[in-house]
Amino acid sequence: MNANAAASGNPVGAAPIRPIAVIGGTGPAGMGLALRWARAGEAIIIGSRDPLRAQQAASSIQQKVSGQANVSGMENSDACAVADILMLTVPFEGQAALLKQLKPAITPGSILIDATVPLAASVGGRASRPLGVWQGSAAQQAAELVPREVSVVAAFHNLSADLLNRDAPLDCDVIVCSDDPDAAQLTRELAGKIPGVRAIDGGKLENARIVEQITALLIGLNIRHKGHAGIRITGLPPAAYR
Amino acid sequence: MNANAAASGNPVGAAPIRPIAVIGGTGPAGMGLALRWARAGEAIIIGSRDPLRAQQAASSIQQKVSGQANVSGMENSDACAVADILMLTVPFEGQAALLKQLKPAITPGSILIDATVPLAASVGGRASRPLGVWQGSAAQQAAELVPREVSVVAAFHNLSADLLNRDAPLDCDVIVCSDDPDAAQLTRELAGKIPGVRAIDGGKLENARIVEQITALLIGLNIRHKGHAGIRITGLPPAAYR
Repeated sequence: MNANAAASGNPVGAAPIRPIAVIGGTGPAGMGLALRWARAGEAIIIGSRDPLRAQQAASSIQQKVSGQANVSGMENSDACAVADILMLTVPFEGQAALLKQLKPAITPGSILIDATVPLAASVGGRASRPLGVWQGSAAQQAAELVPREVSVVAAFHNLSADLLNRDAPLDCDVIVCSDDPDAAQLTRELAGKIPGVRAIDGGKLENARIVEQITALLIGLNIRHKGHAGIRITGLPPAAYR
Repeated sequence: MNANAAASGNPVGAAPIRPIAVIGGTGPAGMGLALRWARAGEAIIIGSRDPLRAQQAASSIQQKVSGQANVSGMENSDACAVADILMLTVPFEGQAALLKQLKPAITPGSILIDATVPLAASVGGRASRPLGVWQGSAAQQAAELVPREVSVVAAFHNLSADLLNRDAPLDCDVIVCSDDPDAAQLTRELAGKIPGVRAIDGGKLENARIVEQITALLIGLNIRHKGHAGIRITGLPPAAYR
């Protein structure tokens, strides 16, 4: 699972840098996650169809974080080729086509973290209404489209992109669903690097169908109450939040 | 909407007592809601198929609360006939048949608050997996089955029955969905009478399909992490929680 991700030029004795490629990373959710992870010291590659836009997005994050940040920009396929942690943040209407296109570029053993939410907005409807997906969820659709031996994890659906792009800690839990326990654990660790976020093991990938739909509910609450809604899960023992 | 609910014998000048009939009220969710509302001074009628069981349940709540509580027990149809606030707490497999049976007894103008969650457990599957309901949600199924001029509200799905039956305040929000704003407001007021609960306007009844499914997710979290999971919605302005 760490494949060819170890970049050269690390200080002797330091853990190899394992960059996170944020695919479709120039949108608000991708930029927000990239910003938060760059601040936490992660190496980030912003992926975009247009490498120039990717580089501009990377520069803008670099400036927000400070000179120490490790953020670059690449065309999406190139980003997949040099990273084995792939964070997918695209609108639902672009998810399947993009994954089909990227399939040859994804390294076997990679982890694909999918935050796609199937909203009716993708077909001209309301962002507060989910679409039914044949496979059960956008994440399960992703799992059908990536190469075998790529682990899909569903996570980060319920974080406000607006709040991610600000400075304050968030007030939201991230429910992580996957059939691969190691990939889920790595994703929970990444979630925990975002201030204010607690990661919760949400079980198998099939549970993503509920977590994705919660986003539609939160969007409806945002429209109705003019806020930036998130969720906290209460009532679990401390060990559940990690 | 207040129909024939005003009981006789109120002190002069006091607001008429408007009892809440908890239909299918001898199960853990119904008992828990009845207990909390009885403690808050509401008049409660426990409904059951078996009037004796209803009366026993009422006595047990009466004892837990103190001599001041106003709790009685009746057969379900009788309870519907004397109350115009109906709280439905039955397993999904019993919901449609019960509503068909009760339809002639429900007073026009009543409010039916539905907490039914369509879980696969109803057909021998897992309680952590929701069933698809043709109408979109159990609450929308209920709306199809009650007499015209009965307002259906979806609420209270995400409260732990276990915690409702204890003494401590809850740590959970109640998302209230209805196409009738007045019925929704009354339901939010009832939710606010449960210590620790905040009520949130969740918009139209159709949104119940997401709120219902959250319960399946919470049940899965309870199984996985051994807790009594609830949810809090963060990031909304104070006026949204009422």
